[in-house]
Amino acid sequence: MAQTTPNHTQTVSGWAAHDSSGNVVPYTFQRRENGINDVTIKVLYCGVCHTDIHHIKNDWGITMYPVVPGHEITGIITKVGSNVSKFKVGDRAGVGCLAATCLNCECCKEEQENYCDQVQFTYNGIFWDGSITYGGYSEFLVADHRYVVRVPESLPMDAAAPLLCAGITVYCPFKDNNLVESSGKRVGIVGLGGLGHVAVKFAKAFGHHVTIISTSPTKETEAKQRLGADDFILSTNHKQMLSKKRTLDFILDTVSAKHSLGPTLELLKVNGTMVIVGAPDKPIDLPSFPLIFGKRVVKGSMIGSIKETQEMMDLCGKHNITCDIEVVTTQKINEALDRLANNDVKYRFVIDIAGGSSNH
Amino acid sequence: MAQTTPNHTQTVSGWAAHDSSGNVVPYTFQRRENGINDVTIKVLYCGVCHTDIHHIKNDWGITMYPVVPGHEITGIITKVGSNVSKFKVGDRAGVGCLAATCLNCECCKEEQENYCDQVQFTYNGIFWDGSITYGGYSEFLVADHRYVVRVPESLPMDAAAPLLCAGITVYCPFKDNNLVESSGKRVGIVGLGGLGHVAVKFAKAFGHHVTIISTSPTKETEAKQRLGADDFILSTNHKQMLSKKRTLDFILDTVSAKHSLGPTLELLKVNGTMVIVGAPDKPIDLPSFPLIFGKRVVKGSMIGSIKETQEMMDLCGKHNITCDIEVVTTQKINEALDRLANNDVKYRFVIDIAGGSSNH
Repeated sequence: MAQTTPNHTQTVSGWAAHDSSGNVVPYTFQRRENGINDVTIKVLYCGVCHTDIHHIKNDWGITMYPVVPGHEITGIITKVGSNVSKFKVGDRAGVGCLAATCLNCECCKEEQENYCDQVQFTYNGIFWDGSITYGGYSEFLVADHRYVVRVPESLPMDAAAPLLCAGITVYCPFKDNNLVESSGKRVGIVGLGGLGHVAVKFAKAFGHHVTIISTSPTKETEAKQRLGADDFILSTNHKQMLSKKRTLDFILDTVSAKHSLGPTLELLKVNGTMVIVGAPDKPIDLPSFPLIFGKRVVKGSMIGSIKETQEMMDLCGKHNITCDIEVVTTQKINEALDRLANNDVKYRFVIDIAGGSSNH
Repeated sequence: MAQTTPNHTQTVSGWAAHDSSGNVVPYTFQRRENGINDVTIKVLYCGVCHTDIHHIKNDWGITMYPVVPGHEITGIITKVGSNVSKFKVGDRAGVGCLAATCLNCECCKEEQENYCDQVQFTYNGIFWDGSITYGGYSEFLVADHRYVVRVPESLPMDAAAPLLCAGITVYCPFKDNNLVESSGKRVGIVGLGGLGHVAVKFAKAFGHHVTIISTSPTKETEAKQRLGADDFILSTNHKQMLSKKRTLDFILDTVSAKHSLGPTLELLKVNGTMVIVGAPDKPIDLPSFPLIFGKRVVKGSMIGSIKETQEMMDLCGKHNITCDIEVVTTQKINEALDRLANNDVKYRFVIDIAGGSSNH
């Protein structure tokens, strides 16, 4: 069903899934006129996030088809509303997961608007005007400027795109647990994919000792040689896991498949913290013993606020942190989705939406 | 099999379980001579903790039979080793869960010895001399003085006994989350049993607004009228749970049966903390969404250090906090165990080990 909201008069080409079969197809739809608080962004690149697959396949049972995925968006501003002073036409812009929040609650007022309970996302959300939101698998985007960040000049637009979701998702756990300013902590990262590989880069940039915890033995060399990880634990090797008990200060768990936290929690020192950023559709198994015997902490974290996202983008600009990506044309989106579902990418697909715009 | 460790020459009468059938029977065994660091304690009272049932029935698969349970012990010191200066014969003493720790690790050095990974408990543990530890369901106890606390004069010995485990278990989560010195927080307590009822008393003494969260509608009146709770949520009532979303700053979950944390986590505000002190034998279900969408925190906590236990005992003395107990004779231990398994006690059974010693 095409959008019928009255002021949605701009026609845009994109790619949508119409059912849970797992594919997207070209899709023409309407976006709103650029309002006084809006910017219009010509999309250059859009990362392909696991969340896109969850929505395309309706894994969480919340998809409103047709769904136009994409929340790792970089592009160039082409229109600016009359209330917008922080952007001008031609600016390099990024849009992540947030499309709208209530602006009035405690979370919104304290610049934690990503936790507003009225939060609406860049796709499969309901915008203030009642329209369904469509994401970055499309030629242009209209976004309220309060949910748009700048992309530093030093960052390439393609490799910066996944920072808008993967990057901010793993940045906030470091920030919230005092791991950006402090250094020398023993940090574990569970899973070496789109999120995990950026987490390694942050952890190394912040000066920590990094251990990758993975079910895949082939990732050891890769983790150490390509990404500079200091240590590797094969989580299926019980003896190895036992020998590393109580050695880590902090663990970031990026795995979005159902798994037990017990063996991994044992790797934490007493009072150690594990942050969960994955969203398995089934509950995670949390055995009580490793939690209580080590006074350990399990925290959730979901992306970050716009303020935090800008802070992270600037920091990435400064430290030259980008994602390791494989750029695909718009003809190859479905192939990319299939390969991502099989973890066959190092480490993030980015769709070249505008086609050959990599010199932006 | 009776104890055969060489210097275990003192004969003591107690009560032991010999198999997983769930009952204890009179049992005569040996304890060590009172060593230079030891005190001998004539046991007056011993609380009946859920952990006792778990051990008697071998629910956790770790019981070394025969097991003499009991780790909520109050009594009078009858012997004092030559190295012991903080106790003298006749002192009112309490022994909780700890029998021995390594004394050398970081936890031990930082007075968090309850998290020492060599920790040995008051029963079903292995003491430094290699002997199996036997608990407070017995006429006297030999304990290293470093794991013994004083019972303030103002506290009755029977109602103080459960403070040594139930009390310290719920006190530390308040202390560790800055809820002892601060006041006016909205605190939820899941489960109104041996642990929960003491938690209500602490929370009220510290000036918080207390909500009981329970599966049992009959507990509402009881929680409010008897214990002074401010609010009550019936956790099986979906509508009631929804209406209280994001209202609590802190939740203490005292339930030791397997359960899902999801609905309860939703009651927490953004950034809110839930502390788990129960130890279900099966993993707890932790749904990722309420954790990550509310940036919530789940922590484990296990009893407390001896320093914290003494601090809590003194605070209970000051605020006149004791447990609501039902005292039973040693003839009624099995009946008490059965009734406790059915939650048929308000709120803690305490065994009158010495028989009619309530005037101590």
